[in-house]
Amino acid sequence: MPHIVTPWEVKGSVDYDRLITEFGVSRIDELLLKRIKKLTGEMHPLLKRGVFFAHRDLNFALDEYEKGNLFLYTGCGPSGPIHMGHALVWMFVKWLQDKLGLELYFQFTDDEKFLVKDKSYEEIQKWLQENMIDVIALGFDPKKTFFLIDTKHANLIYPEAIKVAKKLTFSMVKSAFGLTNENNVGTIFFTSMQAVPAFLPSVIKKKKLACLIPHAIDQDPHFRLTRDILPKLGYYKPASIQCRFLPSLKGMHEEGKLSSSTGEAIYLTDDPKTVREKINKHAFSGGQATVEEHRKKGGNPEIDVSYQWLTFFEEDDQKLQKIYQNYKSGKLLSGELKAILVEKLNTFLAKHQKKRVLAEKKINQFIYNLK
Amino acid sequence: MPHIVTPWEVKGSVDYDRLITEFGVSRIDELLLKRIKKLTGEMHPLLKRGVFFAHRDLNFALDEYEKGNLFLYTGCGPSGPIHMGHALVWMFVKWLQDKLGLELYFQFTDDEKFLVKDKSYEEIQKWLQENMIDVIALGFDPKKTFFLIDTKHANLIYPEAIKVAKKLTFSMVKSAFGLTNENNVGTIFFTSMQAVPAFLPSVIKKKKLACLIPHAIDQDPHFRLTRDILPKLGYYKPASIQCRFLPSLKGMHEEGKLSSSTGEAIYLTDDPKTVREKINKHAFSGGQATVEEHRKKGGNPEIDVSYQWLTFFEEDDQKLQKIYQNYKSGKLLSGELKAILVEKLNTFLAKHQKKRVLAEKKINQFIYNLK
Repeated sequence: MPHIVTPWEVKGSVDYDRLITEFGVSRIDELLLKRIKKLTGEMHPLLKRGVFFAHRDLNFALDEYEKGNLFLYTGCGPSGPIHMGHALVWMFVKWLQDKLGLELYFQFTDDEKFLVKDKSYEEIQKWLQENMIDVIALGFDPKKTFFLIDTKHANLIYPEAIKVAKKLTFSMVKSAFGLTNENNVGTIFFTSMQAVPAFLPSVIKKKKLACLIPHAIDQDPHFRLTRDILPKLGYYKPASIQCRFLPSLKGMHEEGKLSSSTGEAIYLTDDPKTVREKINKHAFSGGQATVEEHRKKGGNPEIDVSYQWLTFFEEDDQKLQKIYQNYKSGKLLSGELKAILVEKLNTFLAKHQKKRVLAEKKINQFIYNLK
Repeated sequence: MPHIVTPWEVKGSVDYDRLITEFGVSRIDELLLKRIKKLTGEMHPLLKRGVFFAHRDLNFALDEYEKGNLFLYTGCGPSGPIHMGHALVWMFVKWLQDKLGLELYFQFTDDEKFLVKDKSYEEIQKWLQENMIDVIALGFDPKKTFFLIDTKHANLIYPEAIKVAKKLTFSMVKSAFGLTNENNVGTIFFTSMQAVPAFLPSVIKKKKLACLIPHAIDQDPHFRLTRDILPKLGYYKPASIQCRFLPSLKGMHEEGKLSSSTGEAIYLTDDPKTVREKINKHAFSGGQATVEEHRKKGGNPEIDVSYQWLTFFEEDDQKLQKIYQNYKSGKLLSGELKAILVEKLNTFLAKHQKKRVLAEKKINQFIYNLK
């Protein structure tokens, strides 16, 4: 089955080489990796391992960084608990913020989630609150991180969004996102709201700044329209650094990325027992049918979801290599491999959940204009 | 030529009887006139003369008024100077406010004007300022009048607008307003913003209130969608009281209503000389070709724009009747009739323009939440 990759759907085994051509993005090559390493002082595992593998205008963004003109933009659509796939991107954003000392504008698109989901306004607001707590707990710098909440900062965002909207016909949005006449008019307007944080800091600071958006590659179509329109309003096209998806627990061939909708994602609020049960029950195994067979033939780490997840979360290269070899040789059983992942995730989650308690009290420090 | 009446275009000689059937509105009958007179204590000339001639749910609105549950809603799209046609509706709104002691929510749709006009954001903001001054100068009660500016009160309006938008597909908006795929996405969304003041007071006061919207009949389609959707959100359908158009100076047969676009409207900021020149040059005359012929045959007040304008602005029935008779008999010449109108308008405008100077300092008293 050929892959399908849109902001709403990822199906089939994703061919990332083909995606680069299909989307017209650029590969992060050795030269660019070296430049990033030089500026950040270290090589992030997700860069080294090719999880962040593609970009648009990243060299331009780094040029502007060197002139002190760069900021980061990312976002969260609050409609449910945060899963590890979201957290992964944001942990990388935090790393960029820390290493480069960048300001980060973090948009919470509570309007869009209300408009597209069969959920009440109040339910979305509840998730907004919960998701903000998770984002804060990931450790962003409160002095340099600015939460923009679409419904709370509409005074700031809406007047800029209509400037975008004036350049954007329904035809353009229709072809970019596959919308139809039966979509609601809020959803049709929404992409204008999403474009705003890519230039709002330039408005606020009265200075033309460059914007870098780290995101999973399926979100690229959203920002293509933004890139077309921003120069017409006198701003730079936003640059991006794009990552592969954290595979679904069910396996990389069945569903391309981790999605909250599958019900088998690991959430930042899951307790240790739930994590163990989910991994044991759902994580697709590359092992053999019996222990004897496994010892003899060895496992296949390439299709084993637990191993693949460790390539995202185990930062120690040597540890990871050892796990790979032991699993391939049959020395490490599938259950043991799963136990390593469970341990890794639960250690992270225990710390995260402790930080959540403190984060709840810090919300106002992060909301733009409230600080 | 059959008439065309939409919120953007009025063409041909308007057949108001046909409009009542076409739009499905109700005629204001004698019984309703009596009820209004009983509640207000007097009969406004525009009601008596059938300028305000149609309505939706006005009896319901008056029932709710008697329970203390009614407010008024009107609006202004700031993209140029205010002409007498606008002022006419608002003077009637002021009369309703005064006589019934009602709160008035006055929406300034600066977003829509920016989205649909070939004008810059800054230009629209300039007109917003100017138009607010005119509205204040008309004498609304600062304690009971609340300006809602779409771009300044977006924090209040946008979160409610998305609740409307969620119930409104592009198909629905398309058929109601004749929009196409080439309209910009802001224009497509906008009707959601316009619906909000019809229920915002219910949100603010946490009490289900009824809303009465006085407006020219061509705006009816805008509020039909609002009427469909509000009950789905738990609010009452807004009621309306609808008026005929102040005819264009060019005459009632050429263009149905006074429009800022014709360039021959009378503006609230016109000086006496400009008013005289515009009336003398453009006001379509029902008089005869020569003085001799006029004295013999008499004029035709039914098609004479100056006379028709006096039916809107001369409150004294006896004076008006005398003018009618004298013009019809040929005693009053066209130039003399024009002079009466010029005098009437310039007296009003001189007072208005004095009030404008004071009004400018009162803007903050009218803006919702600033007071």
